[in-house]
Amino acid sequence: MASQAGIIDSHDARLNTPKTEVPEGSSQESTVQARSRHRGDTLDSVRNYLGLKPEAPVAEDHQSLEHHELLWSRIRLALREPFAEFFGTFIMVMFGDGSVAQVLLSAGNKTSPGGNGSGQYQSISWGWGLGVMLGIYVAGNSGGFLNPAITFNFCLFRGLPWKRFPVYLLAQFLGGFVAAGVIYANYINAINDVEGHNIRTVPPNPTATAGVFCTYPRAFLTKASQFFSEFITATLLQFVIFALKDESNPGAMGKTGAGPFFPLALFFLIFGLGACFGYETGYAINLARDFGPRLMSYAVGYGHEVWSAGGYYFWIPIVASFLGCTFGGFLYDVFIYTGPESPINTPWLGLKRLVMPKGFVKPARDEV
Amino acid sequence: MASQAGIIDSHDARLNTPKTEVPEGSSQESTVQARSRHRGDTLDSVRNYLGLKPEAPVAEDHQSLEHHELLWSRIRLALREPFAEFFGTFIMVMFGDGSVAQVLLSAGNKTSPGGNGSGQYQSISWGWGLGVMLGIYVAGNSGGFLNPAITFNFCLFRGLPWKRFPVYLLAQFLGGFVAAGVIYANYINAINDVEGHNIRTVPPNPTATAGVFCTYPRAFLTKASQFFSEFITATLLQFVIFALKDESNPGAMGKTGAGPFFPLALFFLIFGLGACFGYETGYAINLARDFGPRLMSYAVGYGHEVWSAGGYYFWIPIVASFLGCTFGGFLYDVFIYTGPESPINTPWLGLKRLVMPKGFVKPARDEV
Amino acid sequence: MASQAGIIDSHDARLNTPKTEVPEGSSQESTVQARSRHRGDTLDSVRNYLGLKPEAPVAEDHQSLEHHELLWSRIRLALREPFAEFFGTFIMVMFGDGSVAQVLLSAGNKTSPGGNGSGQYQSISWGWGLGVMLGIYVAGNSGGFLNPAITFNFCLFRGLPWKRFPVYLLAQFLGGFVAAGVIYANYINAINDVEGHNIRTVPPNPTATAGVFCTYPRAFLTKASQFFSEFITATLLQFVIFALKDESNPGAMGKTGAGPFFPLALFFLIFGLGACFGYETGYAINLARDFGPRLMSYAVGYGHEVWSAGGYYFWIPIVASFLGCTFGGFLYDVFIYTGPESPINTPWLGLKRLVMPKGFVKPARDEV
Amino acid sequence: MASQAGIIDSHDARLNTPKTEVPEGSSQESTVQARSRHRGDTLDSVRNYLGLKPEAPVAEDHQSLEHHELLWSRIRLALREPFAEFFGTFIMVMFGDGSVAQVLLSAGNKTSPGGNGSGQYQSISWGWGLGVMLGIYVAGNSGGFLNPAITFNFCLFRGLPWKRFPVYLLAQFLGGFVAAGVIYANYINAINDVEGHNIRTVPPNPTATAGVFCTYPRAFLTKASQFFSEFITATLLQFVIFALKDESNPGAMGKTGAGPFFPLALFFLIFGLGACFGYETGYAINLARDFGPRLMSYAVGYGHEVWSAGGYYFWIPIVASFLGCTFGGFLYDVFIYTGPESPINTPWLGLKRLVMPKGFVKPARDEV
Repeated sequence: MASQAGIIDSHDARLNTPKTEVPEGSSQESTVQARSRHRGDTLDSVRNYLGLKPEAPVAEDHQSLEHHELLWSRIRLALREPFAEFFGTFIMVMFGDGSVAQVLLSAGNKTSPGGNGSGQYQSISWGWGLGVMLGIYVAGNSGGFLNPAITFNFCLFRGLPWKRFPVYLLAQFLGGFVAAGVIYANYINAINDVEGHNIRTVPPNPTATAGVFCTYPRAFLTKASQFFSEFITATLLQFVIFALKDESNPGAMGKTGAGPFFPLALFFLIFGLGACFGYETGYAINLARDFGPRLMSYAVGYGHEVWSAGGYYFWIPIVASFLGCTFGGFLYDVFIYTGPESPINTPWLGLKRLVMPKGFVKPARDEV
Repeated sequence: MASQAGIIDSHDARLNTPKTEVPEGSSQESTVQARSRHRGDTLDSVRNYLGLKPEAPVAEDHQSLEHHELLWSRIRLALREPFAEFFGTFIMVMFGDGSVAQVLLSAGNKTSPGGNGSGQYQSISWGWGLGVMLGIYVAGNSGGFLNPAITFNFCLFRGLPWKRFPVYLLAQFLGGFVAAGVIYANYINAINDVEGHNIRTVPPNPTATAGVFCTYPRAFLTKASQFFSEFITATLLQFVIFALKDESNPGAMGKTGAGPFFPLALFFLIFGLGACFGYETGYAINLARDFGPRLMSYAVGYGHEVWSAGGYYFWIPIVASFLGCTFGGFLYDVFIYTGPESPINTPWLGLKRLVMPKGFVKPARDEV
Repeated sequence: MASQAGIIDSHDARLNTPKTEVPEGSSQESTVQARSRHRGDTLDSVRNYLGLKPEAPVAEDHQSLEHHELLWSRIRLALREPFAEFFGTFIMVMFGDGSVAQVLLSAGNKTSPGGNGSGQYQSISWGWGLGVMLGIYVAGNSGGFLNPAITFNFCLFRGLPWKRFPVYLLAQFLGGFVAAGVIYANYINAINDVEGHNIRTVPPNPTATAGVFCTYPRAFLTKASQFFSEFITATLLQFVIFALKDESNPGAMGKTGAGPFFPLALFFLIFGLGACFGYETGYAINLARDFGPRLMSYAVGYGHEVWSAGGYYFWIPIVASFLGCTFGGFLYDVFIYTGPESPINTPWLGLKRLVMPKGFVKPARDEV
Repeated sequence: MASQAGIIDSHDARLNTPKTEVPEGSSQESTVQARSRHRGDTLDSVRNYLGLKPEAPVAEDHQSLEHHELLWSRIRLALREPFAEFFGTFIMVMFGDGSVAQVLLSAGNKTSPGGNGSGQYQSISWGWGLGVMLGIYVAGNSGGFLNPAITFNFCLFRGLPWKRFPVYLLAQFLGGFVAAGVIYANYINAINDVEGHNIRTVPPNPTATAGVFCTYPRAFLTKASQFFSEFITATLLQFVIFALKDESNPGAMGKTGAGPFFPLALFFLIFGLGACFGYETGYAINLARDFGPRLMSYAVGYGHEVWSAGGYYFWIPIVASFLGCTFGGFLYDVFIYTGPESPINTPWLGLKRLVMPKGFVKPARDEV
C-alpha cells in the first residue's frame, strides 16, 4: 500500500537537498526532468504546492513522448498521484459499498437464483477484499494507500513526505464520496423497493438502508468496545501491511519474492478483517471509506441520523483508524523492523528525532 | 484481455507499411514468413480477408515444423485467432451458464449434500469469474478478449486493427451460442424436472429457467436504471482491465511484475462485478455472453418472450456494454494512461485524429 | 498434470534409441546413471518392467548422495513415479471425500458454529479443488496426473510412453482406495450418528452415506444424460489442462509465464466443474476417485447396491471419463495445438501414424 | 513453514564447528559478525542461551546500520526469531479465533446484512487459512513454523537445532495465549449478549461461547475417534508442508518455482483441513492454537470445564498433533524425500543415527 522506493526521498524533501533525488515508484520509472525544464514551471509549481516530487512518475519508455507537451497531458502529470489515489479509492468503495448494497437490498429475495437473495454476509468480505486488491492495481502511480491512516503511518514510520499527506487525504476522501454517489444512483430503485419512495432511514430501523454507505455499530456495544473494535482492527491492518511491505523480512520479500503477491495478500487481509472483526462495528478503519460515503448519504437525504446514530458513532472510525494504525506500525517497528528510516530505530525510540529533527542523521563514522 | 504487444502493428496495418511488422502476442513468437511464402498465398489471403496479420502467431520453436504443410494445420493457422476467441468464449460461457443452471435448477433440493441445493448465489460469481480466467488462458493466441465491447475498446484506444473486429465479434458470438446449446443439452432433464416436459418459460414466471442462458432485469427497475446498471458495470470492467494491462502503471506491471497475475486478477474482477453489481440486471456486459445464449434459448423453444421480457430488455446489455466500456476506457486514458497509442494522448483529445487520420503521427522533430 | 519435458523421451522409448535420452521432469533434474551403473541392475530392471525410464528422476544436488546405496533408498527410487501418483491421488481423495463426508454428515447440525452444519455444498467444490492442487504439488516426481484418463491422453496426444500407463493406473487406483478407507475410519462415528450402528445405505435412501465415497446420479436423469454429463465435464477437464500445459499458448506460458500458476489454475478448474457441472452426476470424471472409493465402500459393508444403484451407474464415470477426456484432448489438438508430438499434427490427422507407426517420423529434409 | 536454508547449520551447531556457518533464512541475508564482535557478547550469550545462532538474521543492506548499537535494537536482534514466532502465531490466532467468535456470536442475527448472521461455518475455514498465510508472511525471520509440532518435525527430520525448540515453543504458546486475550477483550460485549453478564459456559451448553477460544469434540465420538481425527489431520498437515518445502520435488519447486506460492498454498491447506476434517474435533492440531487460548479462557473465567469437557479432551490436540505430524513427516521422508538431512536417509532408517549420533556423517570417500 505504499510506493516501494518512495521512502528515501522524504529525507531529501525535508532537508531541501533535491540534487540526490531518488526516483519514486520503481526502477522502471525515472524523471521527466529534461523535458519539464523547457516546459516552463507551471506544472512544477502545482506539484510543489501539493507537496509532490517535482517530476511526476512516468514509465521510462513514455517519458519522451510528444503528447506531454499537450495541455491535458501536462495537467494529468501535475495531478498524477492524486488522480491515482482518487481512482484507487473510487474502485475500492465501488466494489465495497456495492457488495453491501447487493446483500442488504436483496436479502431474502426469492427470485434470485438459489431462492435466497443475491449473496450472503460473506459477499461483503469478498467485495471489500477484492476492491482493495483492484484499487491497489489501479493506484500504482501513487503507491496505492487508499486510506489516510495508512498514508499517515508511511509518513510517520517510512519517511513519506508529510507535505503529501493533505492532497492524498483529499483525493482519497473524494474517491469514497463520489463512489458512494454512484452506488446510490445505481441502487436507487432497489432502495426504493426496500424502504419505499423518499423514505431513507438508518439502523436500527429494520428496513434501514444507510448501512449500504457507511458503518453503524451493534446496539450491545459500549462506547469503549466500539472504539476498541475499530482500534484493534486498524492495528492488525497496519501491522500486516508493514510486514508485507518489509523487503528485509524474508517472509515477504525473501529469496523468492512475495512482492507481486502484495495485492493478492491484501485481498486476504481485508477479507479476513471482514470475516473475523466485522461483526461489531463493520470494520470501517478508513476515513475515506466511512466518512466520505457517510457525507454522501447525508447529502442524498438520509438525514441527521447518519451522524447521531450509535451515540454519534461517526467520529470513532476516523479517530480509531489513525490511532490503531499508528499502534500497529509502532508494534511492527519496535519488535521487527530494522530499516533506518523508522524513527523507532533512532536514539530514544525516535524521541530524539522529535526534539532535534535536523541533526539526527549523522554520518556513520566508524563504518566504511 | 488483449495481446500485450498487439497494439503497435495497428498503425502499420492502417498505413499499409508492413515492412516494419512487429510480431504479435509475445516476444516468444515470431512469423512463419519464410515458410508461408512457398506455401502459396491461400492462407495469407484468408487471413487478409479477415483482417488478421499475414502471419499467424505460432511459438518460435513450432514454426518450422513439417506439419504446417498439411492441409488441416494450414487451416488451423489461417483461423488461429478466431479459433482462440471461439474456444475462450465457449469455455467462459460453459462455466458461467453452467453455474447459473446448477444454482437455479437445484434450488432447495434436499438430496444435495448439505440438504439445500447444489450451490447458492455466490456459485454464480465463482462460475463467471473462473470461466473468464480459464477462457483467457485458453485464448492466448488472440489476446483473450472474449467480449466484443472489450475488443472494440482495444481497437479504439490501443490500436488493435479495426479490420479484426468483425471476425473476433463473430467468433465470440458463436462461442457463446454453441456453449449455451451444450448447456441446454446437458441440463435438459433437470430443466424438465423443474418446469415440466416441453414447458419453457422466462422470468418473472416462478419456475422459469430461461435465466440459465441470459439475463433478465428485476421488475422494480426503470428503463433508465436497467441501462445505468449495465453501463456502470461495463465502465468498471473496462477501466480495471486497462489498469491491469497498463505496463506503465507500477501497480500492474512495476518492478516485480503483475503480468502473470492477469488471469487471476480477472477472476477477482468478474467475481466482484457479480457480487457487487449483479442484483439488478445480472451483469451481462457482454454481447457474446448474453445475445448468443439468448438466441440459442429462442432456438430451443423458450419463445418470443426471450426478446420481449423486461420491456424488450435484450438490447440493453448490447448497447450498454459498448457505451459503458468505452466510457471506462475513456476515463482511464484521460486520467491515467500516458502511452502514445491512445487517441486521448493526441491533440484535442483525439479529435484531431478523427479529422485528419492519416497525418496525426508526425516525427517528433525536437527529440532524438 | 504432466511432467513438462516428459514428452519427448517417448519416441526414444518406442524406437529403442536410448542414447539421446532427454531428462524428464525439469532441467533441474538429471540422471543418476553413473551411480546406478555400479549399483547393479536390479533397480533398473524393476523400473524397466514397470515401463519407467531407466533412471529415476532425482534433483541434481541429491544425485550423488551416499544414501542411494541403502536398500530402502534404492526401492524408493525404483518406485519413484508410482509412489508420487499414489500419494498425490491419496491427498486428492482425502480432501475430496473428506469434504463430502463433512458436509453430508453434519447437514443441519445445530451445534456447529453458525448453527447449520459444518459446511454447505460449496465446501465440496473447495475440497476437490484444493485436493487436486495439493496433490499436484505432492506428485511432482511423476507429473501429477492423478487420473487414469488424463494419463491416457498424455500417452495418446503428448507422447508419454504407453508402457507407463498400467503402473500409473494402479498407483492412482490404490491411492483413491486407501484414502477412502482412511476417510471411513475417520468418520465412522459420524456415519453411525447419521445412519445408526451397522446400517450402511446408498442413495436414494434419505439417510444414505455411501455418497461420501463415490458418486450416485440424480433420479431424474436418463442413461444418456448420465453419460453426457460425465462426458462433457471430462471434455472440459482435458481441454483446459491441455491449454494450461501448452507452452506454445501465450495465455498459459507466454512472456511472463503462467507455469507456476498451474496448480492454482487447477484449483479453479476443479472448483468450477463442481460448481457448474456437479449437480446431475457429481463430476466423478476419474476412475481413481470413483471406482477406488466405491470398491472400498463395498468392502466396508455398503452392500451390492454400490454397484447396482442408478441402474448400474458405476461403469459410466469410468467409460465417460476416458471418452470425454479423449474428445477434449482431440478438440484442443485439432483447433489449437501446433506441437509435433500430437498425432493430430501428422498426415491424415494421425491415422497414418496408426497404420505405419514406425516410419512416421521422417527427417525434415527441406529444413535446416 | 521453515527457513529455507536453516537446515544445514544444525549439523554445525550439534558438532560445535561454528567456523563453516551457513547463513540462515535466505541468500540475501548474512551475519552481523564483525559488528557484534565489538558490541560485546551480551547479545551473543542471550542468543546462545536460547539455542539460536550467534548472529541474528538481518537483511544484508540493514546489517551495518548505526542503530544496531542502540539498546533496544540489540534486544530486538537478540530475540529476533522468538519475536517472529510470537507475532506470527499471534496474527494466526487473532484471525482464527476472531472468525470463530464472529460466526458463533452472530449466529442467526437478523440485523446482519443478508439477515442471517455475519458469516457461516465456512468463514472459519477462511479465518484460519488466511491467518496462517499472513502469519507466515509476518514470521519470516524465524521460518514461520507457528506450531510446536511443526518445529519438532523440522528438528527431527530437517536438522533444525533441537536447542531452539524450547524458545520457539514458548513464543508460539505466548502468541496464542495473548491473541486469545485480545479476542476476549474485543468480543466481551458480544459474549455477554449471547451468554449473559458473568455467565461463561463450555459446550455442550447450547449458548456456550468457550468454543471461540479452543476446540471441543463432538459428543458422538469415542476417545479413539477423537484421537484419530486429530492424528490424521496433523499427518496431512506435516506431509503436505514437507512436500511444499521440498526443493527437490518438481511439483513444489521445479523449473518455474512454487516457492513464492508457499504462503498461498498454506491458505488452501489449512482451509481444506477445516472444510474436510473440522467437523469432529475442530482441527486444533497445534498446541499454540489450542492450549494457549484454552488457558486464557480458563484465566478469564470459563471454569474448570475447559479442561474436563469431552472427557478431559484438552490433552488430545497436544499429543495427537505431535504424533500425527511426526507420522506425516515420517511418511513423506520414507516414500518421497531424497535429501541427506533426514535420518530416514541414513543407515537403518535413522536408527544408526540414534545409536551413534556423532559418527553418522562420514566423508563420502568414493565421491569427488
